Amino acid sequence: MRNMQIKYKGETHEIKGEKTLFDIAKELDVDLKEVLVAKVNGQLYDLSRKLDKDAEVEFLTFESNEGKKVFWHSSAHVLAAAVKKLYPDAVLGIGPPIDEGFYYDFYNLNVGDNDLEKLTKEAEKIIEKDEKFIRKESNVDEAREIVKDNKFKLEILNSLANDVTFYQNGDFVDLCRGPHIPSTRLIKAIKFTKVAGAYWRGNSKNEVMTRIYGISFPSKEQMNEYIKLSEEKKEHDHKKIGKDLELFFFSDISPGSPFFMPKGAAVYNELLKFAREIDFKYGYKEVITPIIAKVDLWKTSGHFDKYRENMFRASPFDSDEEYGLKPMNCPFSALIFKSRTRSYKELPLRLADYGFLHRYELEGTMDGLLRTRLMEQNDAHVYVTEDQVEQEVLLLFKMLDEIYGKFNLSPIMVLATRPEKRIGADELWDKAEATLKKILDKSGYKYTVKEGDGAFYGPKIDIYVLDFTGKPDAAYAVSTIQLDFNLAARFGAVYVGADNKEHTPLVIHRSIMGTIGRFMGIILENSKGSLPLWVSPVQARVINITERNREYAAKVSKSLEEAGLRVELDDSSRTLEYKVRESQLIKAYYTIILGDKEESGNVIAIRTRDGKTKYNVKLDEFIEEATKKIKERTIN
Amino acid sequence: MRNMQIKYKGETHEIKGEKTLFDIAKELDVDLKEVLVAKVNGQLYDLSRKLDKDAEVEFLTFESNEGKKVFWHSSAHVLAAAVKKLYPDAVLGIGPPIDEGFYYDFYNLNVGDNDLEKLTKEAEKIIEKDEKFIRKESNVDEAREIVKDNKFKLEILNSLANDVTFYQNGDFVDLCRGPHIPSTRLIKAIKFTKVAGAYWRGNSKNEVMTRIYGISFPSKEQMNEYIKLSEEKKEHDHKKIGKDLELFFFSDISPGSPFFMPKGAAVYNELLKFAREIDFKYGYKEVITPIIAKVDLWKTSGHFDKYRENMFRASPFDSDEEYGLKPMNCPFSALIFKSRTRSYKELPLRLADYGFLHRYELEGTMDGLLRTRLMEQNDAHVYVTEDQVEQEVLLLFKMLDEIYGKFNLSPIMVLATRPEKRIGADELWDKAEATLKKILDKSGYKYTVKEGDGAFYGPKIDIYVLDFTGKPDAAYAVSTIQLDFNLAARFGAVYVGADNKEHTPLVIHRSIMGTIGRFMGIILENSKGSLPLWVSPVQARVINITERNREYAAKVSKSLEEAGLRVELDDSSRTLEYKVRESQLIKAYYTIILGDKEESGNVIAIRTRDGKTKYNVKLDEFIEEATKKIKERTIN
Repeated sequence: MRNMQIKYKGETHEIKGEKTLFDIAKELDVDLKEVLVAKVNGQLYDLSRKLDKDAEVEFLTFESNEGKKVFWHSSAHVLAAAVKKLYPDAVLGIGPPIDEGFYYDFYNLNVGDNDLEKLTKEAEKIIEKDEKFIRKESNVDEAREIVKDNKFKLEILNSLANDVTFYQNGDFVDLCRGPHIPSTRLIKAIKFTKVAGAYWRGNSKNEVMTRIYGISFPSKEQMNEYIKLSEEKKEHDHKKIGKDLELFFFSDISPGSPFFMPKGAAVYNELLKFAREIDFKYGYKEVITPIIAKVDLWKTSGHFDKYRENMFRASPFDSDEEYGLKPMNCPFSALIFKSRTRSYKELPLRLADYGFLHRYELEGTMDGLLRTRLMEQNDAHVYVTEDQVEQEVLLLFKMLDEIYGKFNLSPIMVLATRPEKRIGADELWDKAEATLKKILDKSGYKYTVKEGDGAFYGPKIDIYVLDFTGKPDAAYAVSTIQLDFNLAARFGAVYVGADNKEHTPLVIHRSIMGTIGRFMGIILENSKGSLPLWVSPVQARVINITERNREYAAKVSKSLEEAGLRVELDDSSRTLEYKVRESQLIKAYYTIILGDKEESGNVIAIRTRDGKTKYNVKLDEFIEEATKKIKERTIN
Repeated sequence: MRNMQIKYKGETHEIKGEKTLFDIAKELDVDLKEVLVAKVNGQLYDLSRKLDKDAEVEFLTFESNEGKKVFWHSSAHVLAAAVKKLYPDAVLGIGPPIDEGFYYDFYNLNVGDNDLEKLTKEAEKIIEKDEKFIRKESNVDEAREIVKDNKFKLEILNSLANDVTFYQNGDFVDLCRGPHIPSTRLIKAIKFTKVAGAYWRGNSKNEVMTRIYGISFPSKEQMNEYIKLSEEKKEHDHKKIGKDLELFFFSDISPGSPFFMPKGAAVYNELLKFAREIDFKYGYKEVITPIIAKVDLWKTSGHFDKYRENMFRASPFDSDEEYGLKPMNCPFSALIFKSRTRSYKELPLRLADYGFLHRYELEGTMDGLLRTRLMEQNDAHVYVTEDQVEQEVLLLFKMLDEIYGKFNLSPIMVLATRPEKRIGADELWDKAEATLKKILDKSGYKYTVKEGDGAFYGPKIDIYVLDFTGKPDAAYAVSTIQLDFNLAARFGAVYVGADNKEHTPLVIHRSIMGTIGRFMGIILENSKGSLPLWVSPVQARVINITERNREYAAKVSKSLEEAGLRVELDDSSRTLEYKVRESQLIKAYYTIILGDKEESGNVIAIRTRDGKTKYNVKLDEFIEEATKKIKERTIN
């Protein structure tokens, strides 16, 4: 038996073969406390497996993404073992790791969220026992015999080659490719979080499985942190906020198309109005274009080739005319541009279009307002000469500052440069990329460069906004500034230059706020629903302290309404404490409290979200202050 | 031969039979100069036909609708005769009367608008000749032989019963049911107006025919009046105005969906903003709802049964999910209402929805902005108790006054009452109809009652606006106020009453401005494009007199823009006269003229649409005046 040449962290070591990866790690002085799994020539291996050949090895902990996945996959086995212990009739499906934690699908298992604690306890017992994960090699025929009572596993076996493996910990055995962590003992904290229904293999024609979700960590501290972050996430979840504040809801009658209730529509419309005002200020002109167009249009624009599967078809029920619902406004801007002869004097021509777009997204990928099928963007197309690109993009950054500044948002940017397959001369790309870089450098915004990630028709800047965690990889994609060397040419849109000849303009696609609904979701999450006054769904909630002050409250409420504020009057007979608390929960910007003292003094008391109350304020003065704040769109 | 008992104008006359209707008319002392055709027991007859039985007769002139149609149908024969004279190879199609005039379709005829005068001259010759229209009875077999070279007539014969007729005037013979006027001579004025292409029988799979349109009258005065009115109509035509003012256009890429160019979108958005403000002022709350929804929704609402042929289907290109594009917002309002428990305290709940609607209209029926496939209404649904109907409709009339008053529009109303087939107790109908009548009586608006014309689910008031002719039958249908006893029940939308029990509300469907685009079309037509300042596409057009004043003009233009006005700067080097004229043509509200005198005095000269010019105006003062007018939305 010859020695093995083991490459580890760039150095080659001579190891006496054959040895388990665990023993090799020991010999290489790896800190074994945290190691979960090995990587041999790029492939994951159980630590207990023997190595008998030269190889490059790595040892992975929970810190690595792959280590996490193995850890969570082993945790899924622990979940399944616990389920089988308490519910022996449950039939095993599959149990993969996911982005955060893991799940396992069972058939013939009737449990609810109430059963999760019991199951977690059972899992903790299994962990206590320090059960080793043992790999057993087998073949398909043998395996078929072993799982003969489980039609799901049999189905899986049908798609496997001859060599298969089982993994065992304690009494529990599962058909599984592995690898696994060495022992259950490494799982220092486990928690089952949710029961849900799911179709077997995601197909609605199959059986409905009981899916149990879980999360686990190699330390209790990590679990505590996770729980804390989960709680925080819940508080930031725009779907929960949207429900609590009665802003919007979704319905199966039109998946992915939001229903904005009156208070949500008020927020939405304020955002839209703001976007329009900024556009007007910066010389943009709005156009209004169709929602449906014949498929030819989408063929000319190229959307039909590249985007067909995300597009909706529209057709009269009793006729064979065929249209597409627009997924983007671009082609319409070209038709507007072409609607008459254009002179170079008209450039840059800035055409804003707030058209409603439909994009077919799969049900599972939709996420409240953050990802919808129906959307409206503060979209625009700017027709420019090559020489105008810099000035235009500079203008866009000014607009960006002005808009994002109103919401305390911190944008981060990604510059995506020329891909291998592209149109346009290298000179044009050189100039365009250099321009974008220059502007980004000057802007003071953080940015990274993704080489080769631009569209085939031009480079672009993607704009992200940090979420409450501040982690760049959790940032929201918001909007984009794209140069397009292609669109105008596709539609034959030209302008007459100073030389009296026809030229093809470049086009800048841009949206600053991105999708208005999505933007609303983002600011709701970042503010936990406490929006600035001007965009608050309830700007003032008026509360009477006693029955006696009802009329006065109604009067004050009416005055505020006539001053243009969004007001709610709570003149119910519930306690003051209850009413104040509810006003806080719905994130009313001001809570106006009116008792005998206020009524007799003809003044109001104003409670702000920070819990402070100002007494003896004259109504006129308050109205003046509030409307000024609204007009100026102040942040706080 | 016995005598005939002829009933005429309520009296019975004894006439010696058999006689032609012409002779009978003479005997009855009918003024024969203007009589075109007779009506015998409700059926139209040539005057030359003999009568041999008792009957009730009428004699029709051009004043009656049926008389007009016969007159124009005979004129179509004259047109065809003229064509056959000049173009013997032309093949006859059909030649019916239409709402205004007539047309005749020909195959194998290559003529254009330039040929129309020549053809009119030829027709006048035929008229001069005083050719009688002679009726010839025949049968299908004989007829088939006569028209054997004309496949169109042969096709028509296929659908006829055995007895057919031909009509001859001069050399010209045509298969025709008749009847006709006695002689070509009665046509005192004829004019062929337009050549167009049209598919045989309107089917795009058939031959393209050459259609010639014409108009004719029994007097030259009527023709002159008609020509005058046509010219006026052209000036009022919103499609022409829309083109001249660069407001909107249509494209075959999406028939019936308007493209609003920047100036048109500005007008559109002003109207929408106004509608929103009025809604807010009157306690309406806006909601935003999906554009597509599963077909189930339209089945529940009943739209799918009654409206399917006007609806568009929407479906992902590569999936079989099926949706309908909304033709109306109603069902969504019910879903919003149902989205949580509703208390009687929330009623009346006024939900406004400016959603985009799609309705499939046949190509031929569309008419610029007046009839489109894509539309946005200032739509709302008010959920009320029975007792609240009166107060709500009164409120609607107040809104109506406020909105229509801003455009000098004169609404006329039609109250449509219970039809035979209906739901809801008679008591409810009694009360609802009485309420609507009472409000209409008090309103001061002109109204008529159409008994039995209400929807099956409730009575309604339809609102029309007079066009420039002031004739009620030419009025534009604008909007509607409909009571609905049905919608809430269909969706199970209920509220909890003071009695703590569930009740079904009534719903008032209403739109005040109707479809925003259509409303825009109407005010453009009524004003010939000279809109009030606040809604003018170009509020100020700035003109420099000499090259020297270019900078000053740019400065003034910028100041106006910063004050929020929609401004156009014309600093071209064309003559002042040209520039002023163009400003007038595009209906700029103000034309600001700037020469040396203005520049040195730091003032402006303002020309208004009436051609008057005010000199030495300080810019600040002008801005103050203009912005005040805009804010107050003054009419002039």
